[in-house]
Amino acid sequence: MNTYSHKLGAALTFNKQLLLSIILLVVGFSKAQNADSLQLRKLYDYYLSQSKCYGNLQHLCKKVGGRISGSPQAGQAVQWAKTAMYAAGADTVILQPCMVPHWVRGKKEKCQYEVGGKIMSVSCVALGSSVGTGPKGLKAKVLEVKSFEELERLSEKEVKGKIVFYNVFFEQKHVRTGQAYGEAVKYRGRGASYAAKYGAVAVLVRSMTSVADDEPHTGNMNYDTSISKTKIPALAIGYISADNLLRDLNQNKQLEVYLEMHCETLPDVLSYNVIGQINGTEKPNEFIITGGHLDSWDNGEGAHDDGAGVVQSIEVLAAFKALGIKPKHSIRAVAFMNEENGLAGGKAYAKAAKEKGEIHLAALETDAGGYTPRGFGVDTTNGLYKKVLSWKPLFTPYYVDRISEGGGGADISELDKAGVPCIGFEPDTQRYFDIHHTAEDTFDKINKRELELGAGGIGALLYLIDRYY
Amino acid sequence: MNTYSHKLGAALTFNKQLLLSIILLVVGFSKAQNADSLQLRKLYDYYLSQSKCYGNLQHLCKKVGGRISGSPQAGQAVQWAKTAMYAAGADTVILQPCMVPHWVRGKKEKCQYEVGGKIMSVSCVALGSSVGTGPKGLKAKVLEVKSFEELERLSEKEVKGKIVFYNVFFEQKHVRTGQAYGEAVKYRGRGASYAAKYGAVAVLVRSMTSVADDEPHTGNMNYDTSISKTKIPALAIGYISADNLLRDLNQNKQLEVYLEMHCETLPDVLSYNVIGQINGTEKPNEFIITGGHLDSWDNGEGAHDDGAGVVQSIEVLAAFKALGIKPKHSIRAVAFMNEENGLAGGKAYAKAAKEKGEIHLAALETDAGGYTPRGFGVDTTNGLYKKVLSWKPLFTPYYVDRISEGGGGADISELDKAGVPCIGFEPDTQRYFDIHHTAEDTFDKINKRELELGAGGIGALLYLIDRYY
Repeated sequence: MNTYSHKLGAALTFNKQLLLSIILLVVGFSKAQNADSLQLRKLYDYYLSQSKCYGNLQHLCKKVGGRISGSPQAGQAVQWAKTAMYAAGADTVILQPCMVPHWVRGKKEKCQYEVGGKIMSVSCVALGSSVGTGPKGLKAKVLEVKSFEELERLSEKEVKGKIVFYNVFFEQKHVRTGQAYGEAVKYRGRGASYAAKYGAVAVLVRSMTSVADDEPHTGNMNYDTSISKTKIPALAIGYISADNLLRDLNQNKQLEVYLEMHCETLPDVLSYNVIGQINGTEKPNEFIITGGHLDSWDNGEGAHDDGAGVVQSIEVLAAFKALGIKPKHSIRAVAFMNEENGLAGGKAYAKAAKEKGEIHLAALETDAGGYTPRGFGVDTTNGLYKKVLSWKPLFTPYYVDRISEGGGGADISELDKAGVPCIGFEPDTQRYFDIHHTAEDTFDKINKRELELGAGGIGALLYLIDRYY
Repeated sequence: MNTYSHKLGAALTFNKQLLLSIILLVVGFSKAQNADSLQLRKLYDYYLSQSKCYGNLQHLCKKVGGRISGSPQAGQAVQWAKTAMYAAGADTVILQPCMVPHWVRGKKEKCQYEVGGKIMSVSCVALGSSVGTGPKGLKAKVLEVKSFEELERLSEKEVKGKIVFYNVFFEQKHVRTGQAYGEAVKYRGRGASYAAKYGAVAVLVRSMTSVADDEPHTGNMNYDTSISKTKIPALAIGYISADNLLRDLNQNKQLEVYLEMHCETLPDVLSYNVIGQINGTEKPNEFIITGGHLDSWDNGEGAHDDGAGVVQSIEVLAAFKALGIKPKHSIRAVAFMNEENGLAGGKAYAKAAKEKGEIHLAALETDAGGYTPRGFGVDTTNGLYKKVLSWKPLFTPYYVDRISEGGGGADISELDKAGVPCIGFEPDTQRYFDIHHTAEDTFDKINKRELELGAGGIGALLYLIDRYY
């Protein structure tokens, strides 16, 4: 044996050991991954053939309907969620109290103007939390602006006594529709206070939408008293109506629009988060939670926003029970109250968790619609992102393997601040803002398999977190 | 300097060179990738804000409508495609002749039976290529089977003189709906011949569907004379109607079903593929093609199947023109004729390509609906799969980065056999078989952004193939 051969021999010996280690590692890993892979397949078999989430959502949309915080429907939804969670196999269901705002729309809004003797009716919906116009309505000239900067340049001289029309389009070039929403939504949220600062009497907002139809999109607004102490009415108008108004306004700057809004804010009322729990076998005071919000806007049925998230969360309990999975940690499905106009439920949950010293391993929110799944946005807190990323191959067969850094949701944002690793379930975003906050957010827009596949991804992720995180 | 240090020094020197090479390589690669990344962004900006594919599809669906091979509508579609391709900026548009089958449905089908004196009407649609019943219809007892094996076990004694009802469900547990379709479709395709072999007088087929509604799904069938020389009528029935029939049949095995089908096959007629071409600047006789099929079933509007694929293909021409992209190779958008019941167009295209000695670098087919994109299935032929896989990071921002081995489509299957590397565009599959081959495959089921994002992925891939493959 020459030196070279000897070295080669040594190298081979070394490599054999290394190889053996690698093989053992890979085999061990493969065995674990293989067992997990089989378990995920069982979970998905359940979700795609036995799950109740579609039927549950049908009930919530059709028997309860739109359920804004403080409404009788929101109260019915609380009772429904309790029943559905017990039916899913929860060991306990907790009604967690929280005081919620009670905004009511009243009679249908009106927005109209006259062109050549003909009344033009504008498709419209009051923004949540807006004050009304009083029963006699208000009439004023309209000033179109495309940004806060433009509004500021025009200043009080131009704005005073007018209705400011925020004519801001969704940027269609963004691939993720949420990005367009993020850019436009400030005009809905703070537009009234900015306009009031310069003496406007009301605001109109072009609907936040991906689609050029005439459905008006509501959503919450806030009166920011640091900007202006005056509260003026705020109304969303349909995309086509906005185009028409603009056309008519360009022909006649003196055009006056009449608004009539009967909405008002009543005193806060008592409501509840609904928490369904499977008790952990090893660490019952450590929690992994998945949640959506139970409240919705009043104009639709709250199907995608966020009945879908609620029924997907409840289905995790049902899947674990059906498959005899006994989690080490306690698993909770949380139906949060008041996401749309106050976050009272999310705040109450985080406060109670802190007071009781509950340890939250991870919190997932599903509030982006019941569309075909894409993946998860995951917090880097406590190594959760890396852990989930290591499971990516397990999710690939189910088309939910897009794992990105950072994620969560409004309801769990208080937990996030408290250091809980958060996850946002991310379905495909293309159809969401077609119907978001409109009368078209109804059960018929839900595809059963898409809803179930999303639910399956959430169930599978919670299973892996419970087992390995 | 000791030996070790010397070796280390040499290693460092070597490594410095290696490092430099790697840096140059990475920088070079990054520059190329960065330039491509910017070009893809420009393409998507075009697709999401200026493309005409949605408007084109609206025209095809609403002004032309359902367009089965040989119909006047198919002829109108040929003229429309020619015009649309020139409008998109094609240098040439070729009408490529092919003889196509001419099957006509005639008067609406009937399927009914009596229960307790009440007429039960079955939601139904004749399968493409089926013979009719004659004007007087036919009436017979019904035999439900769940597989060909069951049919064979029952044999002629049980089957003779009866209507065989193939009661085969879509397997909902498959994540990809196409897999369920692949398993069930043989009963539609060869079910009549198998049943005729044992003396059946007609067949009913449970619709191939992901959704439990009552829309009947048509699709082609074939009379396989190697199985039976007798041609018997074949009819698809809705999912709910199939359930009802089964219930009633289980209560009364003597139940007789009446069928009336007026369909017939007329002599073949002349039709055309429509080929829009941008001439290559360097290698004009080398082609990269993208295609969909222009014909559709007659009962719907052929929106997802496959108007979507046609307009997405045409949009590649428009995008290249709009952005001033001058391809090295000739780019073709092909609107194939007769995919649904004969593949005459696909065969004619491959035959002509061979005769003219046209070199096809790659052929892409988009015939899986205009849904939100997932990725591409790519042939391993001539290293295409590896090449496309290397571009995966470029596709990630556009959610079309699922690159799998093997792919193509029916229209390009003849090119595939001739050794052309083939690609299948793969949108999300969940909603496709809800409306596939039904009266519900209409324009309103198309989401503009989903259609455009799919088109963008196809345009981007053809751009990269032209540049680097």
